[in-house]
Amino acid sequence: MGEQVKYELNEGRIPKRWYNIQADLPKALPPVLHPATFAPVGPDDLAPLFPMSLIMQEVSTEREIEIPEPVRDIYRLWRPTPLYRARRLEKALGTPARIFYKYEGVSPAGSHKPNTAVAQAFYNKEQGVKRLSTETGAGQWGSSLAFAGALFGLEVTVFQVRVSYDQKPYRRALIESYGAHCLPSPSDQTAYGRAVLAKNAKHPGSLGIAISEAVEVAAQREDTKYALGSVLNHVLLHQSVVGLEAIEQMQMADAYPDVIVGCTGGGSNFAGITFPFIGAGLRGGHKPRIVAVEPAACPSLTRGRYAYDFGDTAHMAPLSKMHTLGSAFTPPGFHAGGLRYHGMAPLVSHLKELGLIEAVAYHQTECFAAGVQFARNEGILPAPEANHAVKGAIEEALRCKREGRADTILFNLCGHGHFDMQAYIDYSAGKLVDQPYDEQELAMALAGLPSVPEPA
Amino acid sequence: MGEQVKYELNEGRIPKRWYNIQADLPKALPPVLHPATFAPVGPDDLAPLFPMSLIMQEVSTEREIEIPEPVRDIYRLWRPTPLYRARRLEKALGTPARIFYKYEGVSPAGSHKPNTAVAQAFYNKEQGVKRLSTETGAGQWGSSLAFAGALFGLEVTVFQVRVSYDQKPYRRALIESYGAHCLPSPSDQTAYGRAVLAKNAKHPGSLGIAISEAVEVAAQREDTKYALGSVLNHVLLHQSVVGLEAIEQMQMADAYPDVIVGCTGGGSNFAGITFPFIGAGLRGGHKPRIVAVEPAACPSLTRGRYAYDFGDTAHMAPLSKMHTLGSAFTPPGFHAGGLRYHGMAPLVSHLKELGLIEAVAYHQTECFAAGVQFARNEGILPAPEANHAVKGAIEEALRCKREGRADTILFNLCGHGHFDMQAYIDYSAGKLVDQPYDEQELAMALAGLPSVPEPA
Repeated sequence: MGEQVKYELNEGRIPKRWYNIQADLPKALPPVLHPATFAPVGPDDLAPLFPMSLIMQEVSTEREIEIPEPVRDIYRLWRPTPLYRARRLEKALGTPARIFYKYEGVSPAGSHKPNTAVAQAFYNKEQGVKRLSTETGAGQWGSSLAFAGALFGLEVTVFQVRVSYDQKPYRRALIESYGAHCLPSPSDQTAYGRAVLAKNAKHPGSLGIAISEAVEVAAQREDTKYALGSVLNHVLLHQSVVGLEAIEQMQMADAYPDVIVGCTGGGSNFAGITFPFIGAGLRGGHKPRIVAVEPAACPSLTRGRYAYDFGDTAHMAPLSKMHTLGSAFTPPGFHAGGLRYHGMAPLVSHLKELGLIEAVAYHQTECFAAGVQFARNEGILPAPEANHAVKGAIEEALRCKREGRADTILFNLCGHGHFDMQAYIDYSAGKLVDQPYDEQELAMALAGLPSVPEPA
Repeated sequence: MGEQVKYELNEGRIPKRWYNIQADLPKALPPVLHPATFAPVGPDDLAPLFPMSLIMQEVSTEREIEIPEPVRDIYRLWRPTPLYRARRLEKALGTPARIFYKYEGVSPAGSHKPNTAVAQAFYNKEQGVKRLSTETGAGQWGSSLAFAGALFGLEVTVFQVRVSYDQKPYRRALIESYGAHCLPSPSDQTAYGRAVLAKNAKHPGSLGIAISEAVEVAAQREDTKYALGSVLNHVLLHQSVVGLEAIEQMQMADAYPDVIVGCTGGGSNFAGITFPFIGAGLRGGHKPRIVAVEPAACPSLTRGRYAYDFGDTAHMAPLSKMHTLGSAFTPPGFHAGGLRYHGMAPLVSHLKELGLIEAVAYHQTECFAAGVQFARNEGILPAPEANHAVKGAIEEALRCKREGRADTILFNLCGHGHFDMQAYIDYSAGKLVDQPYDEQELAMALAGLPSVPEPA
């Protein structure tokens, strides 16, 4: 007690530049391929979907990319975010390890997602775009883009997976409070949505279908572009503010992480906290162990194949080389909606192949147990996604206890759970179960991966 | 754009002492009376309910009271809270006024309530208390005390108004995630609850009934004390950290408020932001206008009587002189559950009688409209209670526009609305209505106020 627990930077210390790990990779990222021709895509191929400034960020190998002042200006509403030392949790675990966590739940949307939503809205506005279309599952991304759209005066249309739209109306209400338009997907607003509905009028939807609908809308309208909340290089780039701040804050704490833990769905919050540290290591600095924690029910890094695959269900989006469970894979229902995606960010996948990161998978009930333990010691109730990172950090701390090592552990607490209370109700009532994925379905989805000739 | 919007203090600037306005009052507060004898109560009368340190704070006239280090240590998890300049809102309103807001929604429970919950848990723990009992409506206070109890290792029992317990399970889930026990009130756990249920087995409950149950439990058990989330002097004292920080932050912004706006239910967040400024004025400093904003459906300051009344329904709690609608008054249902209380803090009431504060009442739909306008400009979606303060601040800003005055306006944004999305769904759907209270019921409740001989 009485020792420092919070390391805060003043607003002048918001990073002025994002960090681009592509500058420091020992081996370049495999190219993105056209979904029809399998030829590497060029900037013009992507122009119907994204503004040119984001396309150039997607392929940039510059180490530092300037953050536009209007973006930093909005970051000031919640950035720099605090870094905490989890002293009470350390004590409760009886570990000699020091546990630090970066907390992204202080943003208006309650998660790290606005870091990229604001940047994407800015570049689209700058290019004269009037409207953004996107998809969302539980709604963390959709509400973040709606927030960013409201601040830049852009119309936002969100295709929300129908089962979430119907069962979890609260993030949708946040989306609509920000003035955005929210549609259940599959919808009758797109050709692809109508085709899905024709086969099954009560289709519950999926992230892959919602992406396809949002992409279709953007591709058809000159004034409309598409925005993605994870996976892509430019999204991971924007999230680097998390790790850049954390490096400074760890210095304030006179510490450097031995292990960094993040949860992985599409990979953006994980990349945000880890890439600046990995980059420092690649440039000759200290190399912390990097641990990606994924849900056992959707284990792209630990059970997927590293192969070219589609990001969407309609196969209109470009092909990326990534760890994938196959775009036909449907994960069983679990509460961490932000981690229910068949693929993994190409950059995160690439680092895994290069042996620069580790991956581990946990079931949701053990993650909720970790989250509740965290809340009772540290006060913050994490989002279900973030519970995976908490679980990973606790496991590392318990390892330190067994080994008698005083490692320094850092993890990203990427959001609060205030929109996810039904999950906690189910957990408390003992109603949460750990549904394994269907091994046969996974085998079939992997067998159905596209046969893509390896680019030269 | 590019101008400063956020004024942050580092954790060393968390106040070391609370500010007690009783030291600066031009006229002392009327005494609290025993509910049976009408004689002024002494510390011993309150000892069954509260630890002695809190009782002494209740009657203290010391200007500054030291904040114990273990309390400051937990405050560090979210304090100092940020102060923002609402530049985008100013621009949208076209006002020459400068609008600042202090944001308390960054606490683990999402509101200002933990400021006093942590202090109360500390003093009870210090005196060897094992268990705290309390009441809650929508659950902001219950979840805050549950959080504080978890950190100090105290058992917490929360009597939640049954209609909220049934209809709004999410804050209850937060209470239970922190390990506290949550019961619907009226319950079968107390004599008073059983008596209410005997008359009406489906009674929806009320804050007055829940207070009565929580007090009964505390009075009966040696190891159990009672905790209240607003109204009492020591609660308002603990909230003074809000205004003390704001004074420093306004200095950072090189500004001083001409008007300070807060919403009032029991009065604690309003007191938190305003009392340090009022005190500075009473000691010869600048005197801002102070505006209390209350719900038109429960208008204790604007339509209540300044009289001795009971704080609870069972009339077991002491009598306080306050603005009251009568303990028999039942406000119509509206979404700002934290503002649905028949009385007002004695200190706030006293200041109103002394002409040191103003009060105004607004209906809920106009407050939600203000909250949505705020969210689309400033990003944060306020709690329904906080929407009243937003509405009050916007009205002041529009007055400045009409008068061509560049006043400096400060208001307290006491919590986020992430637990209140059903209210926003209803608002968006046009389903929110402004139910007036029943004039006849108010007249009867006021006629039923206890006849108390004025103390000498």
